[in-house]
Parts: sequence; structure tokens; C-alpha cells
Amino acid sequence: MSERIGFIGLGIMGQGMALNLLKAGFAVRVWNRTARRSQAAAAAGAVVGSSPADVAAHSDIIITCVSDTPDVEAVILGPDGVIHGAQAGSLVIDMSTISPQTTKEIAAKLADKGVQMLDAPISGGSEGAAKGTLSIMVGGDAQQVARAMPAFEAMGKAITHVGGTAAGQTVKLVNQILVVGNMLAVGEALLFAQQGGLDLNKTLEAVSAGAAGSWMLSNRGPQVVNRDWRPGFTIDLQQKDLRLVLEAGDQLGVPMLGTSMVFNLYRTLQQQGLGAEGNHALVKALEHLAGVEIGG
Amino acid sequence: MSERIGFIGLGIMGQGMALNLLKAGFAVRVWNRTARRSQAAAAAGAVVGSSPADVAAHSDIIITCVSDTPDVEAVILGPDGVIHGAQAGSLVIDMSTISPQTTKEIAAKLADKGVQMLDAPISGGSEGAAKGTLSIMVGGDAQQVARAMPAFEAMGKAITHVGGTAAGQTVKLVNQILVVGNMLAVGEALLFAQQGGLDLNKTLEAVSAGAAGSWMLSNRGPQVVNRDWRPGFTIDLQQKDLRLVLEAGDQLGVPMLGTSMVFNLYRTLQQQGLGAEGNHALVKALEHLAGVEIGG
Repeated sequence: MSERIGFIGLGIMGQGMALNLLKAGFAVRVWNRTARRSQAAAAAGAVVGSSPADVAAHSDIIITCVSDTPDVEAVILGPDGVIHGAQAGSLVIDMSTISPQTTKEIAAKLADKGVQMLDAPISGGSEGAAKGTLSIMVGGDAQQVARAMPAFEAMGKAITHVGGTAAGQTVKLVNQILVVGNMLAVGEALLFAQQGGLDLNKTLEAVSAGAAGSWMLSNRGPQVVNRDWRPGFTIDLQQKDLRLVLEAGDQLGVPMLGTSMVFNLYRTLQQQGLGAEGNHALVKALEHLAGVEIGG
Repeated sequence: MSERIGFIGLGIMGQGMALNLLKAGFAVRVWNRTARRSQAAAAAGAVVGSSPADVAAHSDIIITCVSDTPDVEAVILGPDGVIHGAQAGSLVIDMSTISPQTTKEIAAKLADKGVQMLDAPISGGSEGAAKGTLSIMVGGDAQQVARAMPAFEAMGKAITHVGGTAAGQTVKLVNQILVVGNMLAVGEALLFAQQGGLDLNKTLEAVSAGAAGSWMLSNRGPQVVNRDWRPGFTIDLQQKDLRLVLEAGDQLGVPMLGTSMVFNLYRTLQQQGLGAEGNHALVKALEHLAGVEIGG
């Protein structure tokens, strides 16, 4: 008999993930802070729990997928939190992107109750969540990773066990450092190209396949040229992730020269009400500095 | 009958390119500032000219492949330069990476003598030059590009006509903005990963295939992890190219926030005698700041 799953957090990512678990045949009990967002999962066969503690009390594996560090602390450690319902031997999997340091603290508190924990942040956006093609970066005990694998496989494709507790969160932050660094380069390169009088589509064609190539250049470069700012991932969410990077970099004594600059540039865009645009709208900060627009 | 080729500059790139032209059956007349570097081409059938002007006088197409803007000015416009030998109707192709602005000035002076010019900088490193697999970014008149195509095809694979005079140089600079921006992200990410206690090889595996992916991450990331600083392209050469980027960015009014930082970081590495290392040794500047070493 497969394990009973609890799923907490039915946001833009969690919706698709919970539905994919149901589709794979798992019994799923859900909870969401805003109750009406549980409707789609309920219609697909999920039981709606009355609190995180209630969900945990009726589940073998409890997945949390919420926004930020304080949200995870609230649903796991808060009043009516998972820790007050979870039975010894159950497994909590946090799939949010949060502080590695806080992840270690939460794992230690759960361990005191005999409850295991994995950190398993995701990338691949809402399409990946809906299609079950997420990348999942997992930190924690190997035996618990094996235990969780059927659930992971219902939600994602590239599932990598990267190390012990919090290693998944740390790898996720590494991922974001690369994403925004590559995006800064794309923005700087395209603005330079336009002001240098180049045809931007020809430029992309000439440089994308070689040493200058990146996923961001191939996927977001054409969007920038077409001024298509629809989000695969929003500035607001990326800003939140970069705050985690800078906090961790501060603790670890690692100079985050590029990332801290991008953090500050995103801040100026949020200030101007652009936080809901795609994180490739980073180039707009450079445009504002230069007083020109790509394609403008 | 195919056109007679003159080839000026038999450095680390030019050597392989001249040999590939000979292999393709072109008659080639060569010149190099340091005469003994002409030996390999001569042994393969090239005639050794007595000066750039002499090479130009006996060629239909004159290729220059030297280091920097002043070198191109010297071999084309200087005493005994190409301009003093080239006949009306001949074509000069500069395959060095130099200032777009100077490229326009040289092209105008050659045009006054009825001599055409293309700028056609390359990427792909010395292996690409030897194997004939260079990427060639060409700026100039379409008819002259067609004329040069048999010679380009002897030396490279991805040949893109990107626009008018100097567009090739501008695209090459766009390429370098992307290369070093992506490299900064790789260095920052790997140092963060190591100090965060991650297994670097597993980290590369987890993030390389997704939105964080880049050519630099896949190709130079493992080199950084193994502390293999052998150059595909040296810090000294990249530093020279970034100086061209910053000069052009200055003229164009484009803020080069990331590129200018990398320029300064490379400067500190040159200061320490590391200019001959591969340009992925950029990460050493971050290591020096943090007082730790990757893999150390």
C-alpha cells in the first residue's frame, strides 16, 4: 500500500503537484491558508484537512510547498502546525525555497519528535509543476530519499539527491545565482548590441550556439527582443530567492558581487511596480540607466 | 581560378587558419612580424612575403589576424602596410578582434583606394583554428561576404553575416560580454556551493541541464572544480577584449555593470602574474576576496 500523502500549500506550484500525486494514485489530504484554493484538488479526490496538524496526523509523508522561510516555519512549527500532528516515523518534505540555515533548525526540531525531514526545492516553473516535469534538488538522508522517490517521480523528472539536510536548498540557491548572473549578461549584451546598431535576432543567432550560449540566452533572449515580459518566474519571487542567497553568502563569507548587484537592480524594478513581470525584465533596469529601450 | 590569399599574422590562431587555407588549395602568401613563425606555413607551400605591402601587392584577398587595434592599424595603415600594396578591387578581411570604431576608420581609408574591407572576428580558440571549426562573425558588404565565403569555409563552420562594416566586431564584443558574465556567475555559484558544504560535481550535475545552464558552466565548471587553469582563451586576451567592450560601451552610453566588474577583477589577476591562465581563472579573484579556494 502506498504511503498517505499530506500536501500543504496549493499555490501556483502546489496546485499542479498535488493533482499529479492524485493522478499517480496516492491518497492525498490537502490544506491551504486560503481555503477556496483547495477546491481543484478536492474535486480530483483529495480530502481537505482542517489544519497542517490535522493533515500531518492523517499522513505518512507531509509535503510543504509555500512561499518563504516564515511561511514554512508557520505551517510546520506554528500553532496547529505539522509538528503538533505528525507521528514518529513520518516524513516531512519541504519543497519551498527557503533558508538553508532555517531548514537545519526545523529538521532538528522534527527529529526531536522522531519525524524525518527532507528539503526538496524545485525548479521548472508552473508549467513544470502542471506537467510533472519539475527538477527536484533533494537534501537529507538517503533512505528517506528512496522512500520519497515514488512521490517525487509523480511530480518531477530530474531528481537529484545532492547531499545531507539543507543541501537541496543550497543547490537551489546555486541555481538562482547562475540564473540571474546569466540574465544580467544577456541584458547587458542585448542593450550593447542594440546601441551598437546590430540586428538583435541575427546577433542571437550568431552567439547562442558557442561559448556565449546559455539557457537564458536561448529562452529569454528572444523574449527580451520581443519585449515579452510574461513571467516564467516573477521578479518578486526571484528577489525573495536572492535575499536568501545574500543571507547565506553573508553567513558563509562568500563575496556575491554579481548577485548582490542584480538584487539591487531588481529592487529598483519592484519599486516601480514591475515585481509581477518575468525575472528577465532585469534588462529594464539597464534600460532605465541608459534611457533607451531594446526594440524601442 | 580561386583568388590568391595573403595572410598576415601567424600567431596561435593564424597558424592553423593559414594551414587550412593551404589545405583547401588556395595559393597563400604570408607575413609575420616574427619571421620564424612563417616556417610551418612555408613548409606547407606558402610563399613568405617581405612586408604587409608586399603580401597585399600579390594577393586578391588579404587577411589580417593580429592581436589588438594598434597592431591592425600598423599592418594595414603603417609604413609598408597593406594599404601601400593593395590593388583597387582587392579585399582586406580583418579577423582580429579590435575596436568597431577603428574598424570603420580603416575601412574608409581603404575605400578611398578602391579596396574593400570586411571585419570577421572569430571564436573557437586555437583548437577551432587548427580544426577549421571556428565561428566567424562577419560585418560588411554582402557581395564581398559572398566573395570571401570559400576562404571562410576553409577556416570555419558557423559563418554568420551579421550586418554592415564593424557589425562583426560589435557581435564579437557581445559574445565576450556573455562569456565573462556567465563565467562570473559560474565562479560565484561554485564558491558559494563549496562554502555551503556541497559536493561540487553533484551540484554541477543538478543544475547544468536547466535554466541555470550555460556553455561556460558545462565546459569550464568542471575545469574550475579540478583547478585546471589551462587556457582555451587567456585572461590577457580577454582583458584586451573587455577593454574594447568598455570603450565601445562608453561611446554608446550603455551601462556595462557586470562587464566592468569582471574587467577590474581580471586586472587584479594580471597584477598577480596570472594573465596567461585561462579566462575561467576569474574565480580566483573571488577566492582571493574570500580567502578560500575551491577544492582547497
